[in-house]
Amino acid sequence: MKVTLVEVAPRDGLQNESEIVSAADKIRLVRRSVDAGLRRIEAVSFVDPRRVPQMADAAAVMAGVPRADGVSYAGLIFNERGLDRALDAGVDEVNVVVVATDSFSLRNQGCSTAQGVERWTKLAVRAREAGLFRTVTIAAAFGCPFAGEVPEATVLELIRRVAEAEPDEIALADTIGVGTPDRVRALAAGAARIAPEATLRCHFHNTRNTGYANAIAALEAGVRVLDASTGGIGGCPFAPAATGNIATEDLLYALDRMGVETGVRIEPVLETGSWLGELLGKPAPALLGRAGLFPPR
Amino acid sequence: MKVTLVEVAPRDGLQNESEIVSAADKIRLVRRSVDAGLRRIEAVSFVDPRRVPQMADAAAVMAGVPRADGVSYAGLIFNERGLDRALDAGVDEVNVVVVATDSFSLRNQGCSTAQGVERWTKLAVRAREAGLFRTVTIAAAFGCPFAGEVPEATVLELIRRVAEAEPDEIALADTIGVGTPDRVRALAAGAARIAPEATLRCHFHNTRNTGYANAIAALEAGVRVLDASTGGIGGCPFAPAATGNIATEDLLYALDRMGVETGVRIEPVLETGSWLGELLGKPAPALLGRAGLFPPR
Repeated sequence: MKVTLVEVAPRDGLQNESEIVSAADKIRLVRRSVDAGLRRIEAVSFVDPRRVPQMADAAAVMAGVPRADGVSYAGLIFNERGLDRALDAGVDEVNVVVVATDSFSLRNQGCSTAQGVERWTKLAVRAREAGLFRTVTIAAAFGCPFAGEVPEATVLELIRRVAEAEPDEIALADTIGVGTPDRVRALAAGAARIAPEATLRCHFHNTRNTGYANAIAALEAGVRVLDASTGGIGGCPFAPAATGNIATEDLLYALDRMGVETGVRIEPVLETGSWLGELLGKPAPALLGRAGLFPPR
Repeated sequence: MKVTLVEVAPRDGLQNESEIVSAADKIRLVRRSVDAGLRRIEAVSFVDPRRVPQMADAAAVMAGVPRADGVSYAGLIFNERGLDRALDAGVDEVNVVVVATDSFSLRNQGCSTAQGVERWTKLAVRAREAGLFRTVTIAAAFGCPFAGEVPEATVLELIRRVAEAEPDEIALADTIGVGTPDRVRALAAGAARIAPEATLRCHFHNTRNTGYANAIAALEAGVRVLDASTGGIGGCPFAPAATGNIATEDLLYALDRMGVETGVRIEPVLETGSWLGELLGKPAPALLGRAGLFPPR
């Protein structure tokens, strides 16, 4: 089995860090990831720099990343202005987030879910004309910090609506880390049925220790693209003390031992996790860096 | 689906703590667990107190635990002397560990695996005569800190040998937290084939973030008894900085949301995890206590 890991540490991992990481260090992070064999990197976002100051230097980061063959860089975009910036910066992919609940959408994006779908639909046309790979992410697909439970039917209906704009990829995001494997299987099966043309990608957080189980469940349900963040950095502002994204090295440990091919070498990812911990001045949440590889090499 | 959780915090959770926890506090921990609905508790061990000083007060602990209907207490035993003490203390179950590799067995128990099987076989006879429920645990069933990989065939052959003494239950332990879901499924299927008379139980550590995925895989493979430790306390002396046992509250979170019945209420387990953190003077590794229940209650 072959699985593509999308490295999200440069964007989702760093975006909530209050101390600004220099563009040079962000480029180092990207370069290290590419050197380890990662081929899809969510490198930057082109949102309002006043709202996410950490990502204000997106153009400078993109100007410095290695443009190796087969390496694809994604930028998160929110609106037309962001798409303009993404095109100027030379990304290969854009990612547009639609939030599954109105309450979270209004707080996060200042618009309803329906308005989010409209926004995505318009952006998708221009992004396609520009030749970009287009991902639409459904945030809070497993639960909402404000509305609580998000019915499966709500997410499936949203998949149907975002699929009309013909995304290359639909990502299901457990934004606040509340999902469990049964829900992963149900949504993966539903998405494959409703939007068979789009690749399905999953984004898990380990906030409540279900993230890795969810990733394995996704694989079993046929998902072949998984997000992960080196060091497990990044988290949810709603649960400050909890761990965030599933860690690239920890996920890779399980995949390697299960014989799943990713093309990524684990040792350099481990080293990058450790380097990130030093850079951010706090130990990365990933466990493999503390426990060590098995069997020892 | 109904699953029995075996609470191991009083024994496996505490045994490596260097500061001695009082018998009164151990009894509090047991009582809190029983009050939360846990019905099987690995409460104590009857090993050499010079080797595991934390468990020296096993008799005092057993004298103070609530003997409610349907609550079963297990004690880990190593030899005849331990069985004598376990009988005197009034446990309901004994657990005998056989280590899957000679190298780990020699360091951990001072005997080879074959000698461990002999030891178990003799203890099993007397324990059965005494009317005790008998568990044999195969330690390092997923990997060894000294020998490295432990072939699946080695574990299956060991299951065959320990099954000859007719255990009520065979437990597969990922002692150093290196297992992955594929191995869990393979061993669970093998054990069910080789030893169909014995209940199968699994013991996972989350040292490398595979513990919860392994627990879910075990359920899918038909395992209906899982160990867990409130707060996720306990660890492996070979990986001091890594988390140890999977946490009762975090496992329960996933099981509750998946509709798996355990009879255990999550709120009091969460409170106990927090209490344990205060008792031990360090935050418990469980994540649910930091992130909070979802949906919020």
